[in-house]
Parts: sequence; C-alpha cells; structure tokens
Amino acid sequence: MHRTKVKVVEEALDANNTIAQANRADFDRFSVRVVNFMSAPGAGKTTLLERVLPQLDGVRVGVLEGDVQGSMDADRLASLHVPVTQLNTDAGFGGECHLDANMVRSALPELPLDEIDLLVIENVGNLVCPAEFKVGEDTRVMACSVTEGEDKPLKYPLMFRTCELVLINKIDLLPHLDFDVDKLLYNLDAVHPGVERLLVSARTGEGIDEWREWLAGVAGRVEARA
Amino acid sequence: MHRTKVKVVEEALDANNTIAQANRADFDRFSVRVVNFMSAPGAGKTTLLERVLPQLDGVRVGVLEGDVQGSMDADRLASLHVPVTQLNTDAGFGGECHLDANMVRSALPELPLDEIDLLVIENVGNLVCPAEFKVGEDTRVMACSVTEGEDKPLKYPLMFRTCELVLINKIDLLPHLDFDVDKLLYNLDAVHPGVERLLVSARTGEGIDEWREWLAGVAGRVEARA
Repeated sequence: MHRTKVKVVEEALDANNTIAQANRADFDRFSVRVVNFMSAPGAGKTTLLERVLPQLDGVRVGVLEGDVQGSMDADRLASLHVPVTQLNTDAGFGGECHLDANMVRSALPELPLDEIDLLVIENVGNLVCPAEFKVGEDTRVMACSVTEGEDKPLKYPLMFRTCELVLINKIDLLPHLDFDVDKLLYNLDAVHPGVERLLVSARTGEGIDEWREWLAGVAGRVEARA
Repeated sequence: MHRTKVKVVEEALDANNTIAQANRADFDRFSVRVVNFMSAPGAGKTTLLERVLPQLDGVRVGVLEGDVQGSMDADRLASLHVPVTQLNTDAGFGGECHLDANMVRSALPELPLDEIDLLVIENVGNLVCPAEFKVGEDTRVMACSVTEGEDKPLKYPLMFRTCELVLINKIDLLPHLDFDVDKLLYNLDAVHPGVERLLVSARTGEGIDEWREWLAGVAGRVEARA
C-alpha cells in the first residue's frame, strides 16, 4: 500500500512538472520573470510586498495571489495600483493547502503578461506542500518570522532548501523575544548551506531596501534558459 | 476532471472517517480522551503543552507528536517525564502536511493507552489540511498567535470553525505589535460564533491556569457516546 501511494504521488508530481514547464514557456514568451513567494501563515508576505512593489523602479510588476478563500491580500495589494489576480483553492474539500502548476495555468488568461516584467506569486501560507509543487517560477523566496522559533528549518527542510532567498522578518520584535538569530542561521545553514538571507522588518523598514533590490534584480535576469 | 477530483477526495475522506471511528473505539475501550491540537508553524503548541502537562493534577497524560520529520518537540516534552510517541509524516514526497486517521492508527501499538487518561495529539503545523482529517479525537483545540495577524480566521475558516477552543497566544507581545485583538475576535465570531477562546501567554503565564483547567476538564468528560 505504501509503495502504491508513493507511485501515485510520483506520477502526480511528474504531471505537475510537465504543466509547470508549459507555464514557464508561456512566461518566457512574454519575457516575464516569476517569483514563487512562500511562508507560514502570518509571516508577513503581503506586508513585505506592500513595502516594495510601489518602488520597483522601472520594473512593471504583477501579483498572483493564492489563498484558500477570500481576497483580502489581493485587495491590499490592488490598492497600490499593482495588477493583482486572485487565485482561490477552495474548490474540493475545504481548500487545497498550496498552489500547483495546473491552478496557476488556469489563471494565465487573467494575467496581463504583456504588460509586466515580473510576476510575484504569493502562495498559500504553509511550510509543507507549497515547496513540493513547481508552478513555473524562475526562483523561490520564503519569509520566516522570528516569532516562529529557531527550529523551523529543521522541521520544514524542503521549504528552506528549495528557496534562493530567505527573508527573516519581524526583527523589530527581537528585543521582546527569547529568540537566538544565530541559532536560526545555524539551522538554516544545516539544511541549505550559504543560502542568501536578509534580516528585515516590514514594520521599521530595516532591510527593505535590500529586499527591493533583490526583487528588482530578478526582473533583470536575462540568462539564456535550457 | 474537477468533479472526478471532488469524488476521489470525498471517498478518501470517507475512508479516513471510518478509520477515525475505529481509533475512537479503541480510545474509548481504554477510557482515554483525545485532543487534536493544531496551529500554524511556530504558534507555540509545544510551549503551551510544556506549561501545563506537568501540572495536570490527577490526570495521566500522553502525547502523540506529529511532525514532517525530526523529534525536537517530542524530545522537549519527554524531558517533562510525559510519555511521548513520535509520528513522522516524511514518507512519500517530502512529508504529508497533516496527520490522518491511518497515520494515528499506525501509532496506536506504541501508545500506552492503559496508563493514560488523556492523549494530546500535536498535529503538524499547518492551518489547512489538519482541519480536514479526523483522527479519532474527542475535541479539537487550536492555537493562533497574535503575531500572525487578525485576518487568519477569515483566511483559514475550516480550522477555526472545527475547534472547540481557540488559544490566542503570545499576548505578551501585544504592546509591540500593530494588532487589534477586538478585530481578531470579531473575525473569529464571524466564522465560529461564540467559540470558547482564551487569551494566553506561554511566556508570562497569563491565561495558562485556565488552559490547564480546560485541558484537565477534557479528561473528566464522561458523557455517553453514540
């Protein structure tokens, strides 16, 4: 039974990868670079986007907002005059806990690909399944909040391992927490040695310039692709 | 295709419910009451258990610790001389994001059911799928942290709707956050009107006596069951 399950899962992921490649080919056709942005619920993804999207000089950005249901985050971002498309996962049984390539594909006709250089896909808040499903992205970013504890890289290694940038958010709260940043970084390096990381506070603005520059840099990537 | 998926999901949940009932019958045979304890990653479940498990006067408690991988939380709780059984979900493709009835069933032979009155199942940190799978519990508790934002009940309604108690944790941080407790409670009542809630701080101890009494009360439940 277990081996059957593994086989079914592998086939599902193969199918997902095929669709993710089709998504990426479509993004490439429009020269749109794509960021898959992930975190636990409440780590601050939307606020981190609010802080930088209006100031991405010269980069035309759009957002695909993934949620189980509702459009609260999309409404927040739309108020910044950024084109936002809502993608809800609530069909089925109370809502899928992640975006997959097929869901993103279903949203492609709604995306203004000919008017943007960069698409940020804000995934469903979850540290497990979003990491398992490629959606056609160029790169992955995750946010983890210092309020979540230093052990998260060890407990959710796939998420931390598949990201190119880790935003360590809410550092303004450090004086009020029993949290050891060095311990978090040690655990992070244990699962993803040397991964780029930024200490940021969406509240005070610390590290936000660096985050904006990093994100703008994704849009500037012109490497040839296989 | 969508209808086929819904049908497959419904059948899977039916199968899960059947196994959950078998689990519950086994728990009943040993007069063990069971709490399914859920939250987002880093909301403080393990710390909230550390604060109360050693002082549950007269109640013999055990813990089933669910994690994608590792046993860090189990190790923390075992140091309190509470019997802890680790249940990892990492078989398959990077780890299931929730416990289901079959996983819990597989752990039953490891549980000292004849030596405990109360079993706390600490689920995988995730606000989506854990709410969808009964595991044989009598009741569900969830923890949400004030650092996660006031919108979480609206974004993850199934989780908040299926719990009998909501622990609103980390209230010691309120002076340092832009967080409106009344707004959270308003959103909570919108998805689960009148659900019992406790404002707690695992750090300062505020509300912890009430949490301990609530948990001890579960073990005292002697109502007949269908």
